[in-house]
Amino acid sequence: MTSINNLFFQEKDPFSPIRYGYDVEEVICRRRTKHQDLLIFQNTYWGKVLVLDGVVQLTERDEYFYHEMLAHVGLHAHPSPVDVLIIGGGDGGTLREVLKHKVVRRALVVELDIGVVEASQEFLASLSSGFADPRAQVLETDGVDFLARTKEKFDLVVIDSTDPVGPAEALFSRECFAHVFSALKSEGILVAQTESLHFHRDLVRQVQRNLARIFNLVDLYTVPLATYAGNWWTFSIASKAHDPRQALRKCQVPTRYYAEDVHHQAFLPRSLYERLMAED
Amino acid sequence: MTSINNLFFQEKDPFSPIRYGYDVEEVICRRRTKHQDLLIFQNTYWGKVLVLDGVVQLTERDEYFYHEMLAHVGLHAHPSPVDVLIIGGGDGGTLREVLKHKVVRRALVVELDIGVVEASQEFLASLSSGFADPRAQVLETDGVDFLARTKEKFDLVVIDSTDPVGPAEALFSRECFAHVFSALKSEGILVAQTESLHFHRDLVRQVQRNLARIFNLVDLYTVPLATYAGNWWTFSIASKAHDPRQALRKCQVPTRYYAEDVHHQAFLPRSLYERLMAED
Repeated sequence: MTSINNLFFQEKDPFSPIRYGYDVEEVICRRRTKHQDLLIFQNTYWGKVLVLDGVVQLTERDEYFYHEMLAHVGLHAHPSPVDVLIIGGGDGGTLREVLKHKVVRRALVVELDIGVVEASQEFLASLSSGFADPRAQVLETDGVDFLARTKEKFDLVVIDSTDPVGPAEALFSRECFAHVFSALKSEGILVAQTESLHFHRDLVRQVQRNLARIFNLVDLYTVPLATYAGNWWTFSIASKAHDPRQALRKCQVPTRYYAEDVHHQAFLPRSLYERLMAED
Repeated sequence: MTSINNLFFQEKDPFSPIRYGYDVEEVICRRRTKHQDLLIFQNTYWGKVLVLDGVVQLTERDEYFYHEMLAHVGLHAHPSPVDVLIIGGGDGGTLREVLKHKVVRRALVVELDIGVVEASQEFLASLSSGFADPRAQVLETDGVDFLARTKEKFDLVVIDSTDPVGPAEALFSRECFAHVFSALKSEGILVAQTESLHFHRDLVRQVQRNLARIFNLVDLYTVPLATYAGNWWTFSIASKAHDPRQALRKCQVPTRYYAEDVHHQAFLPRSLYERLMAED
């Protein structure tokens, strides 16, 4: 891989002990939103790459690993997910996956930074298509505030946040999970992206413990992601009634990674889970 | 993470569309062996990092993921692995794992570049301890040549090679696998590291097809590796008699990642395997 004119992007991720770098074919968009620095560049291999505050959020080539696994495990573990709430996810990737399910009647995206939604609609058509769906709605506000105030009840809540710094930090807190619990119906499920099992073991363990104080059934599954530093990406899942390891409905949506056997094998082997939780 | 005096190592991996970089606390060893450029540097998070021809081979912190999974899956899938051959693996990590099994009576390391063994013995004590074991033997020669000529028979052959460029390329060929087949006893098993499932799908598919022309039972398992570009690292396993998905013996060796449930869950879900093999 050689860089065109040697233009190069180097990630500025305070949590990563490896610095990731990408050749830049073309800078497509570079702007300041109300909340963060937003960059979209073109890379020969990855396609368009979305960067927020110096950290890669997605590439067109491999975003499906993350978005399919964030959406479909919870959706298949629920007997009938009708009302879905997405916290964050302004790029639209999670929304697109959620809306593949015909059973979903409403998907509400609560995004603090509407500038991400706008940039995605302008430059990332393959991600943002769902915003035009009549079942989709976008609310520009802080996710934790929304959860604390809402009287609505959801079947599935998906936390699709950036790394736990700044406004996103509160999304990993016990208080936030308690608000989610209150906003879920009696068979409700929460899924949250919870960083890398290589680099953020303390965070993952803390989230699992916080969830276990509130929810009946708490578990952890992973996906290998090439473009998030630390790869081995974790999703924490918490459920009121149904074991999330079981897919209750057959997979009838088009996917490239998610499948029934992937659902089962994605959950962290019990031996590794026990080792993780025994560390301190 | 800040760099001490801003000294920085950037990986030069021709196969990777992401450039990995590491802060360098101290350069420990930098020399030319008979075959390649060898660098060992100290990093605050990763410990010592071994680099050959610009590509990271291991870090002290996470090498156990790779070496445990390269060694223990094949060793546990075999009813009685007494004679083990390791092709490559000059750092000693695979040898160390193999020798944990008391049933192993002999482990022969065939390494083209004895300079790697020497540097590991000098600077990487936690990896190279096995070379002092009376069951271990090192032979400095080309792996494919050795396999073509040897009259010995082994229970397990482990190919622990560098990326498939230069001398290592032949280790991924059909001819090499045929030589391995001949060098294996009737219940013999081959395990080979076969690069990243994100970045080298063509190579993985080709290896699987080549193995399937020669061996009865061929399969693929993975481990998430933070320090190999593309992570989602694959191991191709081929067996004459026993299904490698089954661990035939209880795990009685000390491990940090490998376990019986890890053994089972590491194999690529069938749906993903079928997708991989259907691509062209």
